[in-house]
Amino acid sequence: MTARVTPDIDLARSMFRELEQGTRVGRGIVRETYGPGENFAHALAERTARGLGLEVAKDAALNLYMTLPGRRRDLPRLVTGSHMDSVPQGGNYDGAAGVVAGLAALSGLKAAGIQPERDVTVMAVRGEESVWFDATYIGSNAAFGKFPAAELAVPRSDTRRPLSEYMAEAGCDLEALRRGRPYFKPADVAAFLEVHIEQGPVLENAGLPVGIVTGIRGCLRHAEAKCFGTYAHSGAAPREARRDAVAATVELLHRLGETWSEIERSGADLVFTVGQLHTDPAFDGPSKVAGETRFVLDFRGLEDAAMYQASETAVRLAAEIGARRNVRFELGTPSYSVPAVLDAGLQQRMKSLAAELQIPTMALASGAGHDAAVFSSLGVPTGMIFIRNANGSHNPEEAMAIEDFSLAAGLLATYIASEAA
Amino acid sequence: MTARVTPDIDLARSMFRELEQGTRVGRGIVRETYGPGENFAHALAERTARGLGLEVAKDAALNLYMTLPGRRRDLPRLVTGSHMDSVPQGGNYDGAAGVVAGLAALSGLKAAGIQPERDVTVMAVRGEESVWFDATYIGSNAAFGKFPAAELAVPRSDTRRPLSEYMAEAGCDLEALRRGRPYFKPADVAAFLEVHIEQGPVLENAGLPVGIVTGIRGCLRHAEAKCFGTYAHSGAAPREARRDAVAATVELLHRLGETWSEIERSGADLVFTVGQLHTDPAFDGPSKVAGETRFVLDFRGLEDAAMYQASETAVRLAAEIGARRNVRFELGTPSYSVPAVLDAGLQQRMKSLAAELQIPTMALASGAGHDAAVFSSLGVPTGMIFIRNANGSHNPEEAMAIEDFSLAAGLLATYIASEAA
Repeated sequence: MTARVTPDIDLARSMFRELEQGTRVGRGIVRETYGPGENFAHALAERTARGLGLEVAKDAALNLYMTLPGRRRDLPRLVTGSHMDSVPQGGNYDGAAGVVAGLAALSGLKAAGIQPERDVTVMAVRGEESVWFDATYIGSNAAFGKFPAAELAVPRSDTRRPLSEYMAEAGCDLEALRRGRPYFKPADVAAFLEVHIEQGPVLENAGLPVGIVTGIRGCLRHAEAKCFGTYAHSGAAPREARRDAVAATVELLHRLGETWSEIERSGADLVFTVGQLHTDPAFDGPSKVAGETRFVLDFRGLEDAAMYQASETAVRLAAEIGARRNVRFELGTPSYSVPAVLDAGLQQRMKSLAAELQIPTMALASGAGHDAAVFSSLGVPTGMIFIRNANGSHNPEEAMAIEDFSLAAGLLATYIASEAA
Repeated sequence: MTARVTPDIDLARSMFRELEQGTRVGRGIVRETYGPGENFAHALAERTARGLGLEVAKDAALNLYMTLPGRRRDLPRLVTGSHMDSVPQGGNYDGAAGVVAGLAALSGLKAAGIQPERDVTVMAVRGEESVWFDATYIGSNAAFGKFPAAELAVPRSDTRRPLSEYMAEAGCDLEALRRGRPYFKPADVAAFLEVHIEQGPVLENAGLPVGIVTGIRGCLRHAEAKCFGTYAHSGAAPREARRDAVAATVELLHRLGETWSEIERSGADLVFTVGQLHTDPAFDGPSKVAGETRFVLDFRGLEDAAMYQASETAVRLAAEIGARRNVRFELGTPSYSVPAVLDAGLQQRMKSLAAELQIPTMALASGAGHDAAVFSSLGVPTGMIFIRNANGSHNPEEAMAIEDFSLAAGLLATYIASEAA
């Protein structure tokens, strides 16, 4: 029988409250990657860790490592954690809940007088939400020295200022990043366990508080797709003279919706989303044929093949529709984050522990990408625990019950304690 | 044989230059209805008219009447002119060319020592471009006391401040407008003749400088159509749980494109345009299922029936797609401007005069709405002369050759002189 460890829920409540107060802008949460919101969250985590007497370290990308020393410091460490940035107008829990769960667990361990066998590190990861910069897993890649230096030039989607400027302002060591200096190697990490709110409705619909994740969907994204036509008067340009960017874009997106259905029917896992779609507000008008559109094509799935098939179909359809409608599509080079299969042994261990603790769980795939995918891709045994969350994530209405959080943090704390035996 | 009258092209060139210098903002022209741009244009027209010794008057809506007195002032007057506002980032000629043509013609008449039999008024009309306020033909309706007082509350599309505030700031007599005080009655106007650049490519493609307009398409517009779904994470929300505003909107617009084709195949005149289409930039994101879209449905045609049929189809499809995709469409109450058939006798007179002057012309329909439609709907014999224009209108690249303008202004001046005989 495993010792049940109670996580520090007062500490968790206090951190969630401070995070919300410090980073709410209007209806939603704004924690910009390497901006004031993310910096605020990391400062709060660091202050909390110091209050708990944890060892605090940072790497060149300003990932934050908050470590409870183990009895044998030479052993590969156990790492838990998640990111602290958010999408614009997101919710309070996406990402941050994983860092808070780690700190609440370590506080619980300390209160119970448990020193683990190996070091246990809560990692607050930088730059996971690729909405700010079209780059994937900035922080977790950098931790392993795998941050591609070319991504320093990626412009922030709203301000168009490059990532390098935001990183420099936050205090990153750009030279070390360019050299690819790792903070640790995969062999230094015994396991990575990420707690995260579920970003879909599966647990909510199943009536279960905690999920054990089987795999993580990858993401193939054309983030800056465009269509160029010619502006014209809506009443005066006859059909045959039109180069209508909206009509062409609507046809492309409608047909890609059909492509999604076909690929799903073939049995492959895929979702397709156009989350942003705009005519140019500086030039569009109710009585103008649109000369330009901008949109995002976001394909996600558990297998490479389906995502690439969808993207290739998009390129082919864009060429065909562009030629027929006399417009020009530029879908751009897509970004890609690999799908990940999570560690089977770790899943089994979580399932057994949850059963011992009488926490009802289910196995499910993650539709969203997570830093855990980076650890997994580098061969680190990796697991994820999902917390039930109503209303989805990436919106101000995220709703995680603290009771569900307590169960997940308790599972995490008990797992860490069990590793100490 | 009719006396050929040479319009004052130096005056025209000078006015076009001043208009461009005074109202260019970045790439394009901005003459906001009852804003600084339109006010600038009207002040320039007034100053020019006074320089020519014309009588100047204004009505409650600040339409500007610049009159060359005739020998018999008791007769119904001849009116020519057009509007002087522009769309945002429009071109220099849409609207303004008609006022400039009128003044260049009257200057030519004066230089030739011709006093017409009846008063000839160049009218600079206010508020024709409904992009600023979702209201049609503000100025020409007001001239006849037909301005609907309810439209004073219409908000400007960008600032959301009501039309009444802009009109009051410009110096309009709102009380007189509310009472519906007319400046003139239809019986006071012997004929209305509007010179305007063509807003489509028909003359350009035909290689002809001047067109004689047969009719004006009406416009049925859902200016503030919306679709409401629910924001969700793009990877984590499975298909069956989605309420995707973009996917639903794309299906609606794609199917309305098919409706347009069907109505055209039935022989009716119709064009369908979505000039503005936006997810909400404050809440959208590349990894978010979109919870809202906003778009414009613009239907134009020479007959009421086809426009209403298309609009009713939109309402029906929106209900069907909304129910199936679990989203809610709000298409709103459409605005409507009636199509107009122009005066056959006036068309014939223009055609004969053009032949005498050896100006190559063709007959064509106007795809865009014009103030001429208001005069025509009130029973005033109404005609329009189109000037060839490359690149369409409502965009910064409008391109009218001054040589083509000269031919149209010469036809206008000669017509006025012929009426004096």
